[in-house]
Parts: sequence; C-alpha cells; structure tokens
Amino acid sequence: MTQLERLQQAVRAEAKSFDVLRSLCDDVGPRFPCTPGDIAAQAWAEATMRAGGFGNVRREVAEATLWERGVEACELRFPRPQPVVLSALGGSVGTGPGGVEAPVVMFGSLDDLEKAPRDLVEGRIVYLHHVMPRLRDGTGYNGGSVVRMRGPSRAASKGAVACLVRSIGTDSMRAAHTGALFYESGAPQIPAAALSTPDGDMLARAIGSGKEVVSKLTLGCKPLPVGESANIIGEVVGRERPNEIVLLGAHLDSWDLGTGALDDGAGCAIALEVGRMIAALPTPPRRTVRIVLFANEELGTGGGLAYARAHSTEASSHVAAMEADQGDGAPWALRVPNQEGELPKRLIAALAPLGIALDPGAARGGVDIGPLRQLGVPFVDLRQDATRYFDFHHTANDLIENVSRDDIDRSTLAFATAVYTIAEAEERFGS
Amino acid sequence: MTQLERLQQAVRAEAKSFDVLRSLCDDVGPRFPCTPGDIAAQAWAEATMRAGGFGNVRREVAEATLWERGVEACELRFPRPQPVVLSALGGSVGTGPGGVEAPVVMFGSLDDLEKAPRDLVEGRIVYLHHVMPRLRDGTGYNGGSVVRMRGPSRAASKGAVACLVRSIGTDSMRAAHTGALFYESGAPQIPAAALSTPDGDMLARAIGSGKEVVSKLTLGCKPLPVGESANIIGEVVGRERPNEIVLLGAHLDSWDLGTGALDDGAGCAIALEVGRMIAALPTPPRRTVRIVLFANEELGTGGGLAYARAHSTEASSHVAAMEADQGDGAPWALRVPNQEGELPKRLIAALAPLGIALDPGAARGGVDIGPLRQLGVPFVDLRQDATRYFDFHHTANDLIENVSRDDIDRSTLAFATAVYTIAEAEERFGS
Repeated sequence: MTQLERLQQAVRAEAKSFDVLRSLCDDVGPRFPCTPGDIAAQAWAEATMRAGGFGNVRREVAEATLWERGVEACELRFPRPQPVVLSALGGSVGTGPGGVEAPVVMFGSLDDLEKAPRDLVEGRIVYLHHVMPRLRDGTGYNGGSVVRMRGPSRAASKGAVACLVRSIGTDSMRAAHTGALFYESGAPQIPAAALSTPDGDMLARAIGSGKEVVSKLTLGCKPLPVGESANIIGEVVGRERPNEIVLLGAHLDSWDLGTGALDDGAGCAIALEVGRMIAALPTPPRRTVRIVLFANEELGTGGGLAYARAHSTEASSHVAAMEADQGDGAPWALRVPNQEGELPKRLIAALAPLGIALDPGAARGGVDIGPLRQLGVPFVDLRQDATRYFDFHHTANDLIENVSRDDIDRSTLAFATAVYTIAEAEERFGS
Repeated sequence: MTQLERLQQAVRAEAKSFDVLRSLCDDVGPRFPCTPGDIAAQAWAEATMRAGGFGNVRREVAEATLWERGVEACELRFPRPQPVVLSALGGSVGTGPGGVEAPVVMFGSLDDLEKAPRDLVEGRIVYLHHVMPRLRDGTGYNGGSVVRMRGPSRAASKGAVACLVRSIGTDSMRAAHTGALFYESGAPQIPAAALSTPDGDMLARAIGSGKEVVSKLTLGCKPLPVGESANIIGEVVGRERPNEIVLLGAHLDSWDLGTGALDDGAGCAIALEVGRMIAALPTPPRRTVRIVLFANEELGTGGGLAYARAHSTEASSHVAAMEADQGDGAPWALRVPNQEGELPKRLIAALAPLGIALDPGAARGGVDIGPLRQLGVPFVDLRQDATRYFDFHHTANDLIENVSRDDIDRSTLAFATAVYTIAEAEERFGS
C-alpha cells in the first residue's frame, strides 16, 4: 500500500470533520471578529490543532474590522402594511433611532440605476432586484456580490436615502443574506440592508404591478474602530524539505446570524482533519503542510492581508496554496496553476478516482489566500459543489443542521489527497 | 367527449390556481381571524366567487378566537448566550414585560414528562423534544400536534413556569412553527412557544451533553375576547337535484407569520378554481357544488362549527363533503366513505388515470368539515402529498415562493374530477 493509499484509508475510516464542525458550532457558535465568539474560536482552534498532533501551533495578529448590528426592522406599505425580513449589510451605517421612511424605487441592475435620472432616485429608497442564479460552480455569486458591495454607494451618489438589495442567495426562505458593502469615496454613506429573497420578490411584484410602495426602515448598526484578531496556524513539518510549504486555508470568522457552519466552519473542519490525518501518518510527507485558519475574511480580509504581509519573505517557499471556503460541497473539479510537468499529472491521477476532473481554467484561490497571488504563490483549486451553498450562506440558517455529513467526508478525502500529493511530490509546479 | 373530459380539458388549459393564490397572498396577505387581513380576505373571496360565475354567493357569521402575538424573544445560556428563534403558540398567555427566566428541563415525550417527579419540573421551563417524521401522508403531524396542544398544561400541572416545544415541522430552518395550544382546565396557564427545529436540536445537544441551560423568555402575546368572522360560500346550482350538495371546503384564515400560501391559501385557490371551471361548463352537473371557505380553522375551528350548526337541518342533503387543506400537494390516494355501490367505482375509475389509487382506510375529512361527521355527512378524501408541506406549515416561510405551480395544477385537476364525478353521478354513497 502506498502512503497515499494509507492516508486515504485512514481518512475514510477515521476522519471526523462533521464532529469537529459540530464542536465549533455548538461549543463556540458565531465568530464575528472581535466578539467573545471570535476569541473563543481562536482558543478552540489552537486546542484542536494541538490535540491533532500539529507542530508549530501559533497565532499571528491580524487587523479586524469592527461593526455592530443592532436592531433591524422594516415595514413595506403597498399601502397594506407588510413586515419583511431583512438584515443590515456588514459595514452599513445605521438609520438613527427614528428610522428612514421614503418611497421605494426599483432597479433590476446597477446599470439601470446608472442610467436613471437623478430626480427619479433623489430622496427615495433604492431597491436593487438582482436575482442570483443557482449554479454548481457558485459563479452566480460574483455578479450578485457586486450589486451588494457597490449598490449602496451608487444609489447614494444619486441622492437615495437608503438602499435595499434582494438577498444574494438562492433560497426562498425568509432569512436575509447579509454580507459586506463597500462605501465608495465621494458618495454619502447611506444605510443599506438585504431583504429576504421572497420579500424582495413580493416587493418587486408590488412595484411591477404599479403600486406605490413606501418603506419604513430602522437599522441600529454602526461601524466601530479597527480592532485586532488573529490567524491560527499549525503545521505538519516535512521530512525532507521542511522549509517548503503546502498551505491549506479556511477562515475561522463567521457572520453573526448563524453559527457559520458552512461559511466557513466546514472549511476549518476539513483543513483541521486533513492536517490531523497527515500528522498521524508513520512518515510525514516530504514538505511541510501548513494549515491556516484565517481571521476576519468577511469584513475586510484582515487575516489574508496579514498573512501575506507577515510571510512575504518566504513566499517563494510556498509550493502551493489551497483554500476550502465553499462549505461542505463535494469537490468536482481541479484547477492547477499550469499543466506543464509531472505534478499536474500526479494530481489529476490522484483525484480522478474521486470523480474530480481537470478544469482547464486558471486556478483562482479564495479570498484569504488571494493576497498571495501578487507574491507569486501558485494556487490549486478544488472546486466544491456550490449548488446548495447559497441557500444558507450569510443567513441565520448557516447551521450544522444544514451540513451534509457525506459531502463533508468526500471533501475531506479530496483535500487530503490533493494536499498530500503536492507535499510528497518531487516536483514543484512548472518544474 | 364526455362532460367530464371536457371539464378536465378546460382545467388543464385554463385553471389558474397559482395565480388566484398569488393574488390572495399579495393583495390580501396574512389572514389571522378578526384582523384587517381577515376582513380583506372575505371581500376578496366573495369578489372572486362572483367573478368566477358562482351562484348564491354569501357570508355566514362564524365565531373567531382572538389572540395577539406581540414581542417574542428568547435567549438560551449554555452558559454561552445564544439567541434562538421561536414563536408563541396560538392562544398562549404572555410572560409579562419582564419575561421568565429559569433553568430548562428536557423531556423526549409527554409520557416522559408524566413520569417525572414534580420536583424535577417545578420552577423550571419544560422543553419537549419531539422530532416529527417526514412522511408522504403527513401523519407525522398527528403525534407532534398533541405535544404542542397538550404539553403546556401537562408541564404546568407539575409546576413548570413556561413550556417550550421543538417546532412541529420537518425543516431545518430558523423559522419557528406556531400553532394552537389547548389549556386544560385545572392546570395553570403558562406561557408556551415553539423553538425552530435547529434551535431545539442545539438545545437538546447542550442538555444531552450535561450542560446546565438557563432560558430567558419574553412573550408579549395575549388572548382576547371572542370575535366574529365569516364563512364565504358560493355554489354552482345543480341542474336536476339542486338541493343535493357536494361540498368542497378549504379555510380562508391563516397564521400571521407567513401569508398562508400553503395553509390554506392553496386549498382556497383549488376550491375556487374547481368551482369556476364547473360553473363554466355548458351544462351544470346534476347536483349542486358548494364551495365553502371556512373562517378561523387555526384557533378554534369557529368556521367549521358554525357551518355545521347553521346547516344541520340540511345535513342529509350533503351527498359528500371534501376538504383541501394540505397545501399544493398533488393527490396520490382516494378514500371513500364506503366501497359498496356504483359511486366508489366511478370515482376510482375517474381518478386512476391521474395516478390516484384507492386507499382502503376510512375517509376522515379535514378539520373544517369534521363537525359534519356527527350529522352523518359522508366524507371523501383526496390524500395530498404532504412530503414538503410541514417544512413551511405555520411558519414565516408559508409563502407563494414555496408553492409548486405544477403540484397545484395537478391538485386542481384531481379535485375537479372528484367533485364533478360525485355531483354528476346518479348514485349516492351506500346506495
């Protein structure tokens, strides 16, 4: 039996990613940066790494953006009063205790908002009705998140008093999808929130049928000063080239509404179990496997930026960086930094029996490892099935109950296979 | 082409149950008894019947139980504070503005609660962890609703200060399932609420792992005096035996949390479209088809009781009573009052091509037509597929977005076929 086969057998028999994740969700819970949950999560992660036989367990300070949610209430009047479910966008300013009340004007896209005359928008609440498609590869999120990130400032620049977006999600539940916004310089900072998708659809039908809709919106949220969190790092030190690193990352922070089971507790649990199973092998792989649980991905990418800054001098020692940040979704495709040389062939051969095919597109990494791109670190993507992910992402339903034990097991096996194969190979990418 | 075939062709081509339902959800919304929504719904139903060519459109007064929900908040402490989602049970008393705070004691069933010594319960909040199974025939609800209805008084009789139940539902969303409770005489009336199923599961895991859990519960709900609502009735008068009645019912009221799309807007839309399509036939059926949209099913069965009282003298004129109250679920089985004579054969033959098989069990009717049983009215059941129904039932997610257009179309065809076949047949059941 090869060492890879031994590892795979052990992962199949003994990996407990679901149980690790349940501990994170139950014993720690939500992990919004700089809250008690964030601090508890760091302690949990260090303890889990130590118990899992990781070496060099440590914390590295990262900036974290603070923000407080506060009360959230919204009533639409068609004129029939209709309470709806919404959540403030991360980073949004509040409305003040009296709230904001104004007629609602709807646009189907940022382009339509751009084209609208200012007097159609001024003094009104802008509602952006973008419907995110459900796609296995999760790319429906790209267009959606732009609407959420950019919409509030685009609306404000035309005089809107607040901005509502249809949740960037694929479910039909009354559970709003929060997520960060980005205030552009030069535009006033107006309060912004996401309506649950069915409430957005109801609003769109009302406006579409010619009704005058007024919204009363109260948001108690407020941005706070920048604080401090930490990346939690542990390693399985390589037997031959300990200074060469295969990085597997996930982010430890989560939004406040759920328990971050899928985003990204699942990725943390997968990474921790991959590290534990590789640490338990009789012989470590040739290179060092480094597991990094990043801080504050959700509101500022503080952890990813801090890691790149702190490790810029050893960037060339990173043979590959990978990230697990699509929940429990079982991997279905592999992207490599280039297809030359032996290593891509090895990877393809190792993953094919798991039903994972080569995707000829360029590897993109995730948000946390993104800052390593400029340092020349090669990315390897295991594309996870995102079909169900955006039903729960950033909502109160991001809970262990919505995680599939089978899918997280399949993901753990695939990540373990990829990480070990790269860490053990003689070659590097492009060599 | 037979008249039944003509009807079925028309239903397939022209029935618009989904659009009728969307109008009820969007233009009226929630229809809790004696609220403005209830009054608007009555006007909507009468207008829809008149526009659909119904005869004898009228309203008949029914008692309605009033109840106000008010604020709802709950925090569990593990000791980690964990806000959870809950909703008061219909009819519950409130906690007072200061709320109730006490340790939580968990039982897996009413039996376990019965067996517990009083000092284990006294002064505590009882949590009843009953997990409802997902079944096509919906019978998992029977055992569950007993826990919800009876649990609060059983807990109170042992000195509990409040009662929580796991939502009687099959989903894993943070959307609590409300529903009526029943205060037994002799037991103190204590506040009672349903936790969302994942929050109940989290609580059960915490208590199961030996943690001491304290809950702080605030419910602003209060029972109010009995008020008045109305059943809305319309007919297609029979061509030969106008005094013989085939009744198809559904209930117009809904819980306040969603828009009552599935419970029971769907049944109302099906019944209204069945009536409209039969009214549009060149020749009416032999007997009268009577569509009844009942008042106040959810909290006291006021409409069903009022109908039985008002129509007791014509009970023997009711050839059959049917009810559509399982949402959009496509029918899969037929139950008849007895299998003797020609009429059951006709019905079986008419429904078999629609994939509906005879269920040899006794027809049970629904809650609204239930009081007609004692008057000897024969029931016919079209058993609707309830697999998804209890994901949404009594929650904020009972919305048009969670209704299947295909399923509601199949239901409309099946109910139209059954109602017409009975109304047109020479025979009565048992003859």
